[in-house]
Amino acid sequence: MASPAGPEIERLIRLLARLPGLGPRSARRAALALVKRRESLLSPLAEAMAEVSDRVRICSVCGNADTSDPCAICADSTRDASILVVVADVSDLWALERAGAVQARYHVLGGVLSALDGVRPEDLNLPNLRARVADDGVREVILALNATVDGQTTAHYITSLLADLPVRITRLAHGVPVGGELDYLDDGTLTAAIRQRGDV
Amino acid sequence: MASPAGPEIERLIRLLARLPGLGPRSARRAALALVKRRESLLSPLAEAMAEVSDRVRICSVCGNADTSDPCAICADSTRDASILVVVADVSDLWALERAGAVQARYHVLGGVLSALDGVRPEDLNLPNLRARVADDGVREVILALNATVDGQTTAHYITSLLADLPVRITRLAHGVPVGGELDYLDDGTLTAAIRQRGDV
Ligand SMILES: [Zn+2]
Ligand SMILES: [Zn+2]
Repeated sequence: MASPAGPEIERLIRLLARLPGLGPRSARRAALALVKRRESLLSPLAEAMAEVSDRVRICSVCGNADTSDPCAICADSTRDASILVVVADVSDLWALERAGAVQARYHVLGGVLSALDGVRPEDLNLPNLRARVADDGVREVILALNATVDGQTTAHYITSLLADLPVRITRLAHGVPVGGELDYLDDGTLTAAIRQRGDV
Repeated sequence: MASPAGPEIERLIRLLARLPGLGPRSARRAALALVKRRESLLSPLAEAMAEVSDRVRICSVCGNADTSDPCAICADSTRDASILVVVADVSDLWALERAGAVQARYHVLGGVLSALDGVRPEDLNLPNLRARVADDGVREVILALNATVDGQTTAHYITSLLADLPVRITRLAHGVPVGGELDYLDDGTLTAAIRQRGDV
């Protein structure tokens, strides 16, 4: 049977269903909500997506997503440049910034090492990390990585990678639940985890 | 504190959060997924939305959403024009079509009567319904409305509205769970509810 919704809407539904948090059925409801609110929701969302697609770039210094390169965080001279916070993903950077947990610079790895998923050191933004720590007057590297096996494997790898550099390497306090992901934590837990960070 | 994500991405997050099924936090994750997959997801989705926004219209005959007006269902001469299925919303039409429950025409009310929400007969696509039933050789009107108080109030109203016309008025069988919504039912239940429809 032909789709009742037409190929354009079916294509929209298929693409919406690829968003995290939306399954096939909720994507269908979302598409219908968009069709019904063309002026107030569909057109603005299409424009917002086109604008983000046109304007947002990945910062060549830290890996953050922003409209400027270097990003606003890298360009912010009021931040403590002696502290570098290493995160797996931009979502972790956003979570720490939302919490106001630390006024420092970041380094986004673009993932974590994973034997299971076949993620190797050369797949991550690691060479650049060593260069930044060696050159930029960084005195402390905070490893703000998930408390998962892969996160901790990555933390150990980075500790070895930077072992010969005169830099303090710290990790988040164990306020982060074992197996938990940063992005889901509340601001207070994130801030406590930054405050109680310990040496690796 | 300024947003870490920049105004363009924050705007995208706010708009995504207005989609049914996405809260503020999942909208943020969805936005990040879009930024990270600009070529494979963000750009195609922006284009799909723009295309739907440009091309999809509400059918002036039945109220369905389609790229043509009259819609493909209204223009389909193989369908039984003597049966008119009245639904509250386009999502209900889609659900019945997905189930392949009936090969007939539809009439989308654009909602149901509701004292609580202040929805009155003049707020719905009701005058046009009477005209269609009177003029179009319709012999049966199937009231495919939710088994909720408002749905059944609407069914009674329509039954009165069409009482003087020589037409059989039926309702869905009680396969529809009391208080349940059509859009969430499986295809088998929907088909059974159409097959076992009874006179009002
Ligand atoms: Zn940056
Ligand atoms: Zn139509």
